[in-house]
Formats: sequence, C-alpha cells, structure tokens
Amino acid sequence: MQLVTIDDIRAAADRIRGSVVRTPLLSAPWGDPARPLWIKPESLQAIGAFKVRGAFNAIGRLDDASRARGVVAYSSGNHAQAVAYAAAAFGITATIVMPEETPGVKVAATRSHGAEVVLCAAGQREKVADEVVARTGGVLVPPFDHPDVIAGQGTIGLEIAEDLPDVATVLIPLSGGGLASGIGTAIKALCPGARVIGVEPELAADTAQGLAAGHRVDWSIEDRNRTIADGLRSQPSELTFAHLQQVLDDVITVSENDIRDAVREIGLRAHLVSEPSGAVALAGYRTAWTPPGPTVTILSGGNVEPDLLAQIFAGQS
Amino acid sequence: MQLVTIDDIRAAADRIRGSVVRTPLLSAPWGDPARPLWIKPESLQAIGAFKVRGAFNAIGRLDDASRARGVVAYSSGNHAQAVAYAAAAFGITATIVMPEETPGVKVAATRSHGAEVVLCAAGQREKVADEVVARTGGVLVPPFDHPDVIAGQGTIGLEIAEDLPDVATVLIPLSGGGLASGIGTAIKALCPGARVIGVEPELAADTAQGLAAGHRVDWSIEDRNRTIADGLRSQPSELTFAHLQQVLDDVITVSENDIRDAVREIGLRAHLVSEPSGAVALAGYRTAWTPPGPTVTILSGGNVEPDLLAQIFAGQS
Repeated sequence: MQLVTIDDIRAAADRIRGSVVRTPLLSAPWGDPARPLWIKPESLQAIGAFKVRGAFNAIGRLDDASRARGVVAYSSGNHAQAVAYAAAAFGITATIVMPEETPGVKVAATRSHGAEVVLCAAGQREKVADEVVARTGGVLVPPFDHPDVIAGQGTIGLEIAEDLPDVATVLIPLSGGGLASGIGTAIKALCPGARVIGVEPELAADTAQGLAAGHRVDWSIEDRNRTIADGLRSQPSELTFAHLQQVLDDVITVSENDIRDAVREIGLRAHLVSEPSGAVALAGYRTAWTPPGPTVTILSGGNVEPDLLAQIFAGQS
Repeated sequence: MQLVTIDDIRAAADRIRGSVVRTPLLSAPWGDPARPLWIKPESLQAIGAFKVRGAFNAIGRLDDASRARGVVAYSSGNHAQAVAYAAAAFGITATIVMPEETPGVKVAATRSHGAEVVLCAAGQREKVADEVVARTGGVLVPPFDHPDVIAGQGTIGLEIAEDLPDVATVLIPLSGGGLASGIGTAIKALCPGARVIGVEPELAADTAQGLAAGHRVDWSIEDRNRTIADGLRSQPSELTFAHLQQVLDDVITVSENDIRDAVREIGLRAHLVSEPSGAVALAGYRTAWTPPGPTVTILSGGNVEPDLLAQIFAGQS
C-alpha cells in the first residue's frame, strides 16, 4: 500500500497556504515542568477544526474540469463544514449528506457556507453520497480515507516541527485516523526522535485494541456512540490503519471524566473553547505517563454545544 | 507632552519578540459582509492577556543594575500576572501589591509565577507600592501610565498593520488607555486611512465623556465598579488621555447585555474564551454603526471566573 510521504505533506502545505490559519504553537506554562506543555489550537481555523486542511488540499488537487463539477461529502460534523467552507472559497458547489438526526445548528452552519444539504436516514450516508456523485458528477471528498486528506492534516506536523524542532512527544486524538496519520508521518520524518502517541476515549478504543491485535477491530456504533467525544466515533480505514501502524509509538485511552476535566482546563487556563473530542490529547497528557521533554497536544476542534460547555464550566458532571 | 512614536513601538517589537505570542489575526467569516470581521486574540498570551507586551518592554528597557533590584507593581488583575510572568522570565524578583479583596485564585496565579504578593487595604495600592519601592529599590512598572508600557501594547497595532494593511477600522477596549494609546499610535502611523475607535462599558464611560468634554472627567470607583467588565474600571492618566485625544476617531459605549452576548459569540463562534472586558470591542462591532471595510476587534484577555462563563453559555443573564 502506498503511504503518504513527507513530500506529499510539503506539497499540501504549499497548496493550502493562505487558505487556512497557520496556527500558533502555544506554550502552556502551567504544565508539568518535566514535560513542558504546548497546545496546537486547530480550533482557531475558520470553521473551528483542523478539517479545513484536508479539505483544501483535496479540492486543490483536483483538475479544473473535475473541480468545476463540484464536491460531495457525508458528515454530521466538522468535515461537513470544512468541505462546504473550502468549496465556497474555490467558488464551486458542495453537496453535503447529513443524517436526519444531525442537530439543526450543524445543518444551519453547513448551509451558511452555501452548501446544499441532503438529509438521509441513519446509516445511509455513504449510499446517498454515492447517489449524489452519480447524479451530479461531483467528486467525493472523504473525511479521512484519502491520501490528499491525510497529507492536508499532516501540515500540522510540519508546523510543529518548524516551531518546536526539539519536540519529544506529540499527542493526537484518534478517530478515523486521518489526523494522526498525517501528523505522525510529518513528525517521524522531521523529528525522528519524537514519540507520536494517539489518544482515544476508553468508550471508543477500537484503534488501541486494533493496533495491539495487529489488525483493525470493529466496535459497534452503539458502543462508540457512548463517548461524549462525538468527533471520535469513527474507525480507521485500511489506509489510515496502515499509517497508524507505521507512525504511532503508543495509544493512550482516557475516561469521560478525564475529557471533561481537559475541556475545563483548556477553557480556564489556555482560554480556548474545545469540544470534547478536541480535548482528549490534553486528557492523555494529564492522566498517562508520557516521556519527558517538550510535549505538544493537538486541540483538534472547538465546536461544542453551549449547554455542555455551561455544565463543564459550572463543574457539573 | 512627549507622546510615544511609531519608532518606540518598532523598538518595543524588537525587544519583546520571542517573549510574547505573535498572535494570529483570525478571520471571523460569520461577521457582517460589509464589515469583514477579524479578531486579534490577545487572550492567547501565556497569562491570558495583552499586558505581557507592556511588561516585557518596560522591564526590557531597564539597565542591568536597575533591573537587578527587581520590579514592583500594583494590580488585582492581568497586569499583576503579566509583571510576575515577565520578571520570572528575566530571572528577577517581582513584588505585586494586591487589594485584600482580590479573589484567591488571582493571588494564587500571581504567586505561581514566583512573585511575592503584598496584600493591602482597598484604595491603598499605590501608597503601599511606593513603600515597597522605597524599601527594596525596585522599579515600579505601572499598568498603563508609562511610555514603555504604551509602546509595548502598541506592538499589537504593528502586527495588525502587517497582517491586514487595508484595515478600515480597529475597535479597542478602553480603560486606563494604554492599550488604545499604543495600538492607535501604530495604526495611525501605518494605516492612516483607518479609523481607530475605543469601546467602553456604558457603566464606566468616563473616557467617552472626557473626550467629548476635551478634558479628563472623574467617575467614582463605585460607579465604575458596576460593570461586569472588571478590567475596564480604570481611568486614563494625563499621558494616556493625551494619546487618546490624538489617535481615537470615536468612542462607542456598550451595555452589560451587549458584553455578555459578545462573550457568548466569541466562545461559540470563534472558540475563544474571553473575559467580559475582552469582549467589549466585539460588542461595539455588533451594536454600533462602524464604517464599512475590514474591521479588527481586539480581544484583550481571557481571565474569567468559571461560574460567570457557565452562566453566559447557559444563556442566563
């Protein structure tokens, strides 16, 4: 299987420059002195999540004729907004397939970027997206299972290596694995001494289990849906799993309480709003042993319901 | 009176580079299309507020012998932490005078940077700080009434001019006036067509009234203490007022509800935690007519009590 290379990621960085926020690497001086803490706040992207990097790279790689037919995506979350936002920037149409049970606020946010939203029954997303592709001739932009998407997310790793070349550990949320595949590939190429560690909720720890077993394992969607980290309920594809096997040194799992505590810490100490999925890397830093030296936690996104945020800041569980 | 110049601000930028966060200018695509909205998130500084810029510049300007005697400041807010943090970076002692009624969490935060905290009776801060200076030979770093502090805060304006040279309007919170004096000086020098507008709570609108009258006016501290924006309860000094007369095109006042709404919008749309004082510039953008064209709002700080944040995200007033 062909894996994404550092050259792919460098090309992606050139391609998306100016379209995405070059996020700062923020020192968090209240971290553990033996493991100086840094936060890479991808929540500062225009749609509040790292997903714009992969979307801009994938759409930017299309030839003009393909791109002119528009793009299609299926997602109930940040990938929907990312593709809608990137398509608008390219001046092309986007059709986003979302499950009927998607909260109205997320549908509205996706439409606000000019995308057409097609609602579908639960579990029918991929099938309906394929129908849209067949009907419109548009190009499907998958949420993680594509080399261009992985390379786009990998630009985060490139920036970390530029800003903190002596990084010792990078902690990355794990779901479909596109983010960790990309960042891991960049870090292993540029900072070969650094450890790359994935972080998963205990309640959706299929990747931890799969890497230990040496092959992908399938957790039921009912099981994965138990975690508050609604962005971490996907599972790796064959492509991302192969990358994760190559680049991850370890996987940490965190409890639901660890995740809530991390959302609160990020809000009150780093002054950043994190969604639960965005906070698992800090939760891993707080709860697990990780090696000494400069440690970067990826804050992957900030799209969270206000009521949940209110509960967490009020200290309610 | 000698006012701070763009050269002072340029020198300050050279002096503090590497010690403070070069904050990104974030596009907020959900703003008014006629007035594209940008946010300058100074809440991302290590102590959560712009005050580190002035503190690093003021301490960096001292000669070695003076600096070795340590620094002194009086503040119950962000300036306390900024001076403590900067002093620690320079490896010198800091003594911070804080009123007895300062919340314990702020005293602890200041001590966490290694500063000595001297508690004093309400209204005695400046007197006690003078006594500390007399006793220790340390140098007082005032919160706003000093050219080096103003020049340090002005580096924000320099960065705005670099990142968005065609800025049409800059909205800046007003309190003691150091922030607006510095930013306004930089913007007027580098983007002479841009309008610089101060924003104040209606309940602490002494500067709006003073600029209209052509001289400083004094509001009682009881009156100013009514606003939720606890960082905006100071009044300009002679030095900052002279700058504000020179650089401000207008002052907008905002209600307490406007401020709460802006904290909520910044949290949910920009994914940043703002203290009430930090959100007044966005409140001004939302509630007042401002000129068309790219508009920058300064998010001055993010240090806020979790209970207040919980209330605001829960939609309680």
